[in-house]
Amino acid sequence: MVEVLRLGHRRGRDDRISTHVALTARQFGASSVTFSGERDDSMLESVRDVVERWGGPFDIRYREDWRNVIRDFDGPVIHLTMYGVPYYEDIDGLEGDFGGSEDDILVVVGGEKVPSEVFEIADYNLAIGNQPHSEVAALAVFLHDLFQGDWTDREFEDAEIEVFPSEEGKETRKTDTSS
Amino acid sequence: MVEVLRLGHRRGRDDRISTHVALTARQFGASSVTFSGERDDSMLESVRDVVERWGGPFDIRYREDWRNVIRDFDGPVIHLTMYGVPYYEDIDGLEGDFGGSEDDILVVVGGEKVPSEVFEIADYNLAIGNQPHSEVAALAVFLHDLFQGDWTDREFEDAEIEVFPSEEGKETRKTDTSS
Repeated sequence: MVEVLRLGHRRGRDDRISTHVALTARQFGASSVTFSGERDDSMLESVRDVVERWGGPFDIRYREDWRNVIRDFDGPVIHLTMYGVPYYEDIDGLEGDFGGSEDDILVVVGGEKVPSEVFEIADYNLAIGNQPHSEVAALAVFLHDLFQGDWTDREFEDAEIEVFPSEEGKETRKTDTSS
Repeated sequence: MVEVLRLGHRRGRDDRISTHVALTARQFGASSVTFSGERDDSMLESVRDVVERWGGPFDIRYREDWRNVIRDFDGPVIHLTMYGVPYYEDIDGLEGDFGGSEDDILVVVGGEKVPSEVFEIADYNLAIGNQPHSEVAALAVFLHDLFQGDWTDREFEDAEIEVFPSEEGKETRKTDTSS
């Protein structure tokens, strides 16, 4: 199981980026996202609404105290940051800790300003490239490689709506889940 | 060369997502990004400022007339959309058109509402998963796979600042590019 923690949400300014973090976590195989920073019920609600319509399971949580989310986590904590060690380089111990293992993983992505304490309490500070980048892009590529593309087979349960893939336009089908 | 076209920018509401699209295009190996929708000089300026400090080359453009950006493009036009055909499936002609070829490619990513005309004039409508998702995540994973990870070797020119990768915190080095 992979869980995602998104730090430092700010109401208004971050609502779309935070929503994209949640959609990316859900789509690329994580089982939950926890938001920290300012509590933003309308953003949480809009993500829950996506799960309601497009299926789950996928948990959406808010925790003010991100330190304890990290400290209480039972498994490697991986902080994605442009300042970290490139994730595609050999890093002592890394492979053994989460590559192909059964351990749960917590992936932490920052907001605008990440406290230095995060670098200290995370087990790994990994960079998806050492360039200014998007936490959405970093999360997507990290999960894509972590699951070796297997997220593409994921079936979501209790979806009310799904896409009928098309070469030419938008087609969806709706499912009656009321029975 | 891969170029990116981002449709339907809205001032204020989209500034951060559009900035993330630009950073993702730059980092994952595209040579330019063109924005359409509402003209937003402050957003364009903030992306140019990143290129100024972190290096290029990477072109940032605004074109009101996105139809002609697509129509005038000399090479395959790939529209990334959750409604499209999964990009990892075999698609007739696709491999021959851009997989490992020398052709330039235009990657189109939408905003909130993509006109149906885009589906018609794009050569391919490809889905990075048929779930609600982020255009930032879709672009990142598509470019990452297109370049088979080779973007990680990219050296940016004339950077004033670069990250010194660290396991424990934020370290950068500044370069005097004034000489």
